[in-house]
Amino acid sequence: MGALKRVTNKKDELEEKTCKNGQIKVGYQGVEGSFSEQAMRKYFEEDDISSSPFETFEDVFQALKDREISYGILPIENSSTGGIGEVYSLLRKYDFYIVGEMCIKITQNLLGIKGSKLEDIEEVYSHPQGFEQSVEFLKDYPHWKLIPYKNTAISAKYIREENSKKKAAIASKRTAELYHLDIIQQNINFNQDNYTRFIIVSADFDVTTDADKISMVISLPHKPGSLYQVLRYFAENHLNMLKIESRPILDRPWEYFFYIDFEGNLQNPHLKKAIDQIEKKSNFFKLLGNYRKGRNINQ
Amino acid sequence: MGALKRVTNKKDELEEKTCKNGQIKVGYQGVEGSFSEQAMRKYFEEDDISSSPFETFEDVFQALKDREISYGILPIENSSTGGIGEVYSLLRKYDFYIVGEMCIKITQNLLGIKGSKLEDIEEVYSHPQGFEQSVEFLKDYPHWKLIPYKNTAISAKYIREENSKKKAAIASKRTAELYHLDIIQQNINFNQDNYTRFIIVSADFDVTTDADKISMVISLPHKPGSLYQVLRYFAENHLNMLKIESRPILDRPWEYFFYIDFEGNLQNPHLKKAIDQIEKKSNFFKLLGNYRKGRNINQ
Repeated sequence: MGALKRVTNKKDELEEKTCKNGQIKVGYQGVEGSFSEQAMRKYFEEDDISSSPFETFEDVFQALKDREISYGILPIENSSTGGIGEVYSLLRKYDFYIVGEMCIKITQNLLGIKGSKLEDIEEVYSHPQGFEQSVEFLKDYPHWKLIPYKNTAISAKYIREENSKKKAAIASKRTAELYHLDIIQQNINFNQDNYTRFIIVSADFDVTTDADKISMVISLPHKPGSLYQVLRYFAENHLNMLKIESRPILDRPWEYFFYIDFEGNLQNPHLKKAIDQIEKKSNFFKLLGNYRKGRNINQ
Repeated sequence: MGALKRVTNKKDELEEKTCKNGQIKVGYQGVEGSFSEQAMRKYFEEDDISSSPFETFEDVFQALKDREISYGILPIENSSTGGIGEVYSLLRKYDFYIVGEMCIKITQNLLGIKGSKLEDIEEVYSHPQGFEQSVEFLKDYPHWKLIPYKNTAISAKYIREENSKKKAAIASKRTAELYHLDIIQQNINFNQDNYTRFIIVSADFDVTTDADKISMVISLPHKPGSLYQVLRYFAENHLNMLKIESRPILDRPWEYFFYIDFEGNLQNPHLKKAIDQIEKKSNFFKLLGNYRKGRNINQ
């Protein structure tokens, strides 16, 4: 496999990726207090990092391309609402690799300015996923006007600036601290087992010796049994598939890219054999990374 | 299979589903001029229908449950941006069936009040999918404020009411006619092969004799090779899988429901055998319908 350039351990890898002053440059989408920023702090908690917020997911990829940052951190899936299509597409579009993973427990909270109460509220601001995750709570307040915003943390910041008891945001407890807001009601997300999985992306393919998860994206000939053939290579080599996600192929309506995650380390010869077989059967094949599986972390 | 109650042809089925005055009651989400309404008109073009708009996807399912309507029509997938998670979840939550399908070509257009020009615009209103599908066009106007709305047609209606040259909507040509707006720029969606697939949902399981597509949702034991085992039954019985969509299982983070579409009619004995085998291997199994595949229709 040409993509496999080297096998390092995490320490070596970080040494190469630091600035002259020893800091690692990391980019995320959103603002301070966003779930991406929290995931970044947790993943790099033992490292000296300098972080840069970006407005869009693609801006993070562009900064990696321009070598402005060494790592980007991006949400790829929520355990209640599913995969984040745009990040899947960007992973295929840019020639970068997943080098790590972090799963963060997400709680949504209703935040208002000091002294505001449930009965004062007329308008609520949040990211559409904030509304979607709080849908059961919101059903009790059908008169509230819901206004979608780019980011839960930006909506909390806006509430602080507006300084009106009529306006509330759905966001994290961390943003309540940051913007000096009251938590009017906590944990309003209907699914109390609500995690977001973040990936750490790098322009270089790095495999740490403790890597136990592999991601790839493929497209297959449009004929009966082609996906079955691919899954057969996993089964025959006793490889555990963790996830399959279908995403549209733009110029071929109702045909799909398959993003497949499975357990393993590329140093395993069974796995190398299965991957070689899959690559041969695919119209499109890209290895997205071999990294350490992220545990579920409570905030 | 207990779910298979009867096999009818479309004419018989419609005769049973009419009101006393001969009209078929159909519900859709959105307002007049929405893509759902257009898909409904096209699917039922030879029938006498009375249609009801509903505010949310779930309202359509609730109206079916209350027998207020005989059919609901809902978008389930876009060929550029992928599956619509909420509709997949509602299909599993309610005990209803897919009885038909319609694929409509979607074009997005920039609409303004009479005489408005590109250089006048400061704010643009649309459904988030309207923005997402027009992302390449919008990159040339980074100063425009993008304001997400529930529905493309509602945003067009709002532009008409506001009557300001500074405001524009991204919506269909049909809404330009309905609300007497100018098309400032047509076909601004980046993917010119952009279709949305709609499903027709009924509270009763109906199989027409010309049905050629089957949908099911399953969950599988969380162990290596379980999805492979299921796909093997398709391959061994020469059944063509059309699509697999993974959706989260709420209380089990990183486990999935698989929504599988494949070709066939339930009267085929090979297919019945494969389905029985799959049902036995599944933790959860629901047959979602056997219906006629929708062609891609240009508007």
